[in-house]
Amino acid sequence: MVVNVERLYSRRAKKLRASEIRELLKITQLPGMISFAGGLPSPEAFPVDIIHKCIDRTFTKDIKNALQYGATEGLTQLRGVLAERMKEKKQINCESHDLFITSGSQQALSLVALCFLDPADTYLTTVPAYLGALQAFSAYEANCESIPMNSDGIDIDSLRRNLERLSRTGIHPKFIYTVPTFQNPSGETMSLHHRKELLKIASEYDFLIVEDDPYGELYFEGKPIPPIKAFDTKGRVIYTSTFSKILAPGFRLGWVIASKEILEKLILGKQATDLCTNVFSQYVAYEYVHGGYLDKQVETIRHLYKKKRDIMLSSIKKYFPKGIQWTVPRGGMFVWITLPRKIDTRIMFQKALAQKVAYVVGDAFYPDGMNYSSMRLNFSYSDNTNIEEGIKRLAEVIKQEMKTSYEQEPFVPEGV
Amino acid sequence: MVVNVERLYSRRAKKLRASEIRELLKITQLPGMISFAGGLPSPEAFPVDIIHKCIDRTFTKDIKNALQYGATEGLTQLRGVLAERMKEKKQINCESHDLFITSGSQQALSLVALCFLDPADTYLTTVPAYLGALQAFSAYEANCESIPMNSDGIDIDSLRRNLERLSRTGIHPKFIYTVPTFQNPSGETMSLHHRKELLKIASEYDFLIVEDDPYGELYFEGKPIPPIKAFDTKGRVIYTSTFSKILAPGFRLGWVIASKEILEKLILGKQATDLCTNVFSQYVAYEYVHGGYLDKQVETIRHLYKKKRDIMLSSIKKYFPKGIQWTVPRGGMFVWITLPRKIDTRIMFQKALAQKVAYVVGDAFYPDGMNYSSMRLNFSYSDNTNIEEGIKRLAEVIKQEMKTSYEQEPFVPEGV
Repeated sequence: MVVNVERLYSRRAKKLRASEIRELLKITQLPGMISFAGGLPSPEAFPVDIIHKCIDRTFTKDIKNALQYGATEGLTQLRGVLAERMKEKKQINCESHDLFITSGSQQALSLVALCFLDPADTYLTTVPAYLGALQAFSAYEANCESIPMNSDGIDIDSLRRNLERLSRTGIHPKFIYTVPTFQNPSGETMSLHHRKELLKIASEYDFLIVEDDPYGELYFEGKPIPPIKAFDTKGRVIYTSTFSKILAPGFRLGWVIASKEILEKLILGKQATDLCTNVFSQYVAYEYVHGGYLDKQVETIRHLYKKKRDIMLSSIKKYFPKGIQWTVPRGGMFVWITLPRKIDTRIMFQKALAQKVAYVVGDAFYPDGMNYSSMRLNFSYSDNTNIEEGIKRLAEVIKQEMKTSYEQEPFVPEGV
Repeated sequence: MVVNVERLYSRRAKKLRASEIRELLKITQLPGMISFAGGLPSPEAFPVDIIHKCIDRTFTKDIKNALQYGATEGLTQLRGVLAERMKEKKQINCESHDLFITSGSQQALSLVALCFLDPADTYLTTVPAYLGALQAFSAYEANCESIPMNSDGIDIDSLRRNLERLSRTGIHPKFIYTVPTFQNPSGETMSLHHRKELLKIASEYDFLIVEDDPYGELYFEGKPIPPIKAFDTKGRVIYTSTFSKILAPGFRLGWVIASKEILEKLILGKQATDLCTNVFSQYVAYEYVHGGYLDKQVETIRHLYKKKRDIMLSSIKKYFPKGIQWTVPRGGMFVWITLPRKIDTRIMFQKALAQKVAYVVGDAFYPDGMNYSSMRLNFSYSDNTNIEEGIKRLAEVIKQEMKTSYEQEPFVPEGV
């Protein structure tokens, strides 16, 4: 009998669809293409020799345990040095038992979904939002409510209005998802005041805050604002970060800081999911942090990425036509571009590809698709020469598109 | 406001409970303890120097890509060499695109649950069953129906009776979970005839077979029976295996072979779960298989474990009192012991610990707890001297328990 597999899938699986964006990213790998599309760290930034040294040390010190199964919560000594670092650099009051190791912070988000989202539950996210988080949460059939961002990181008034509206219909969101520092995709940072305000509102409406902080170490100027978790005395914030941007994404290492009871649930979820995180890589990461290499390395990355950001921003200023807005990220890996409303970056995408330059359409970062005239540009991956050349190409595509779209559709004032 | 976290958990999370067994395993790590409890491969078997060589080769050849994000489906060249091996050694008709890489086979089981199990769905498993599979599936709120094993690996009559009973109440199981070769925990192997029979019945009732094959390479005698997947021409079998027993569990690498459409769903599930598997470890595993080390290594492990099994079985024969049954595994890592019905291995466990020997109570491997007089013994982890000494200790504990339990409760013939 032929397998009737459609009948056998879970409701979850029926909803899983290939992300168009991830499919498009494959095209952007073609030779000659300058891609601002991916979210990859610069390979120039990988501390190859240091990693080799940390591996050799692991072989000398404890290789048999590094190759064996490990505890679900992660390597004790790695949790220890991370907790210390979180205390010192992030002002998060935590010990090693407040923290556990995940297979990248994507797994942390997926475990949050497993442990908090029933079908038809509601969660909030600031938008535009990180694509991977939307995927992790929608895999568990939850409803998403979008809260717009502004230059303070979140539109607090809109958040309040939405919460009141939801409350009137008996909907109590489980959590809000946010990347408060150098956000992906916008590059924006939530102000100190808004961080505290968000925590107050979360307490008022009794929902959790899922704080995703992959870019916090990559600041280019000024003193970094502490994460929301630093102000959390009630266990309301689930904080997650990753080694992907400060060591190497190929090691798939992240961590979570949360209250004791939430941590226990997430760890049980992880045990059912993959038993434990790659033990060998945890040993290498321990040697890397413990050996004091991380501090030097983030310094190197900051310099490297600041230069890349500067080149991208100055090229944008130099080549882009008038009428275009962009964010000025003080860290991280992304710039967010807002084009005139007439331009649909989805349509323009193919023309950009033809000119061998790629971006991600802004639309992809909205759960329901709401924003067709924006795009995300990544500045960490391309080398310096390519950044200028790519922006130049993109500027030409935009100019052409502005010309064509205005010619085709005459301007109609809003409200008409 | 204090967080009311109970209100926020998903139904799934409310059901997640710490496994007593896994907690007990921690006690078995105490110094002086001879533990037959864990399911760990022998650290003597880790090919440390070969792994170091494979790592150095990765650094020389393609280190920047090994440290970067990778494709969700896994490293192309690793999929290639694995598919070749599966064709040659397992008679599974597959190409690299029929196979994808997971973070250990535990993740494969978890992805099967994500993609096939809605709450209250039913799956089947042979019992006693691998604990981790039960955890992976129960995390998705499914109902489990137990099918007893026999020395042919599965009680086919019971399977038919159960399917008819379920069918009468309108229940159509999504899949059956089975470890047909050197099963964990029983050590039993499903006969060729029963493999084909199971496939026939699965086709008749239109459910899938989830075939977990972590131990298939570890045969000690005779020619290994091909996996059920080798006879599957309709895409009815989801086959999974792992590097944990033939390289190192610390690398967390497994793979899945399934039909194109099922593979696509599982890969989408994985993307939402953790983006991709540890890339660096995939490169190392590729060098390991491609370099021809795997064949030599499994040969070494077979010799090592056969010796350990022989010592365990001859010690059992020598020291255990009469009235006890045990399996004679032709491969793998486990022996299953059945004691007289009067003995409750859960009660005896504390007494064994006091004598510094540990096992896993048989009860743990039954979804509803059904078997109190059995136990699982692992022979791969302990060294040879400890195996004999541990069995000697265990024999004393059993003798004492038989004496006590018979003294306390006089024998009552069945049916009275």
